[in-house]
Amino acid sequence: MAYHLGWVDPQGEPEPVVMQDRSHGHLVLAVSKAVGGDNESSMPYAVAVELLYNFLLVHEDVQNANTERNNRPTIWWSWGPAQAINTGDGIHAMARMSIFDQRNATGPAADPRSISLALESLDKATLEVCEGEYLDISYQERAAVSVSEIVTVARKHGALFGVAARLGGIASRADDSVLDALYKFGSSVGTAQSLNIDLKALWPDPGTERNEVQRGRLQSKKKSLATAHAIEQGTPKTRRRLGEIFMKRVLDPADLDEVTSIFSETESKLFAEAQVEGLITEAITALESTSFSAEHQSSLSESARLIIGSN
Amino acid sequence: MAYHLGWVDPQGEPEPVVMQDRSHGHLVLAVSKAVGGDNESSMPYAVAVELLYNFLLVHEDVQNANTERNNRPTIWWSWGPAQAINTGDGIHAMARMSIFDQRNATGPAADPRSISLALESLDKATLEVCEGEYLDISYQERAAVSVSEIVTVARKHGALFGVAARLGGIASRADDSVLDALYKFGSSVGTAQSLNIDLKALWPDPGTERNEVQRGRLQSKKKSLATAHAIEQGTPKTRRRLGEIFMKRVLDPADLDEVTSIFSETESKLFAEAQVEGLITEAITALESTSFSAEHQSSLSESARLIIGSN
Repeated sequence: MAYHLGWVDPQGEPEPVVMQDRSHGHLVLAVSKAVGGDNESSMPYAVAVELLYNFLLVHEDVQNANTERNNRPTIWWSWGPAQAINTGDGIHAMARMSIFDQRNATGPAADPRSISLALESLDKATLEVCEGEYLDISYQERAAVSVSEIVTVARKHGALFGVAARLGGIASRADDSVLDALYKFGSSVGTAQSLNIDLKALWPDPGTERNEVQRGRLQSKKKSLATAHAIEQGTPKTRRRLGEIFMKRVLDPADLDEVTSIFSETESKLFAEAQVEGLITEAITALESTSFSAEHQSSLSESARLIIGSN
Repeated sequence: MAYHLGWVDPQGEPEPVVMQDRSHGHLVLAVSKAVGGDNESSMPYAVAVELLYNFLLVHEDVQNANTERNNRPTIWWSWGPAQAINTGDGIHAMARMSIFDQRNATGPAADPRSISLALESLDKATLEVCEGEYLDISYQERAAVSVSEIVTVARKHGALFGVAARLGGIASRADDSVLDALYKFGSSVGTAQSLNIDLKALWPDPGTERNEVQRGRLQSKKKSLATAHAIEQGTPKTRRRLGEIFMKRVLDPADLDEVTSIFSETESKLFAEAQVEGLITEAITALESTSFSAEHQSSLSESARLIIGSN
């Protein structure tokens, strides 16, 4: 666990901290602050979402056969799939412990109702992510996946950012209507991020290379919004070409070049980018429905754009 | 999920119920009854432990490459390891939902303190099982594993029956001292069962064959108490022979015959059986420390023996 979290090397010796994505925890703290809470009391909630996110990453690395993450060998690659499955399960069980510890604390995040709401929200979101993963894996075996199916998967994956924003609100005892708006805000951000990861995997930013996780998604033929759009909008000839490529067991770089060139013809990149922008608008609208100060709204919008990775 | 739980066939059509081990849930209900509760109110707690147990089974089937369980293909064997990991994760997230639903119910199992205690106990036990699994997998790569190391693993695996018994008590609002005794009772039973599974895998009951899960444990070289005892007590020649066998990548039936014949020389079977008997005594002692009626004590002792599978 400590290795995966970037704190120690494979031998268990401390190593310089490996920079990792902590955007789920960040969102909990940022939202809690906007509601009027403080970092100290909402930190246990942030820890819980971070651990949930990380258990999912450990398992995703086995599922997609990722050999590296953050430029380090993954757990399954170093210690085998059995240990990786087990490590992920352990992190999953541990995710809630920082919240249980709150029972003996004081403040809004220690309120029994907050604790209970937070725990239930975490499990519901995790189950939703698993439902999305179920569909995502099923779609790997199919050539044709519709735009709405891809959006459904992305929305389910967005549930983890949805629960992060919601937990920020719960930790500061926000009203139910605010909690709903926060979930909508976070899940729109998470959905947009999920779609944007696929966009960046197909079209990396100028001057950057695909990272190992993006390569893993492409090679294991996870379907993207652009793929679904091209299949729906393309000519019979386009569909046949895409079908032939996706019949292969594993995609190689030349296949990817052909795929992206097809997507240019069908304007599928533009379509996918417009969907991401639409989700950003949804997120901002949800944020505006709260009574957060202009300063907090602008700071949360900025966080949202950083999480989504949009330019 | 429904397929794994034995309710539907691989196409999702209802099928005659497949008999499955529900001893964890049974123990929750039996203990709750002994404390003075009723089945209806403790059922959600029984469901939670059953789901935790089943998520672990789905993952164990991937980890040990079991192709069958209860004479049906396992999830990973039918739908691939990625779907099996994900299905297990989903069951894990769902395990607590029946307990959350209790918040709107009445009775001792709906008491916020009971709910909170139950949730924390479940996660702690799951984490303990994962710690045991971590050691168990590590030991597969080592030739020499000590008796105390094997007992440590078995005790950690016993945590799941420990929490089952404890949850039966929590559901009926038993005193803390009773909860402690119940945990000790359940975890001794679970530890004894875990050691006994290894015994039965090495020496099946007369007239029975090894089942797929027993074969999986042996072939993947999971170490048993008998193995550890034989290595500690055997002559240098015995140790060398065992070492040679365990150096193989996979054990075949002839290897197993040689291993069991070595264990007869070193009296390791007798040693392992004595350990199981010792744990049964521990369980009964814990039970006697409660104030349960003679009738309930005797019924729980009977359940314990059935769970352990001792003759």
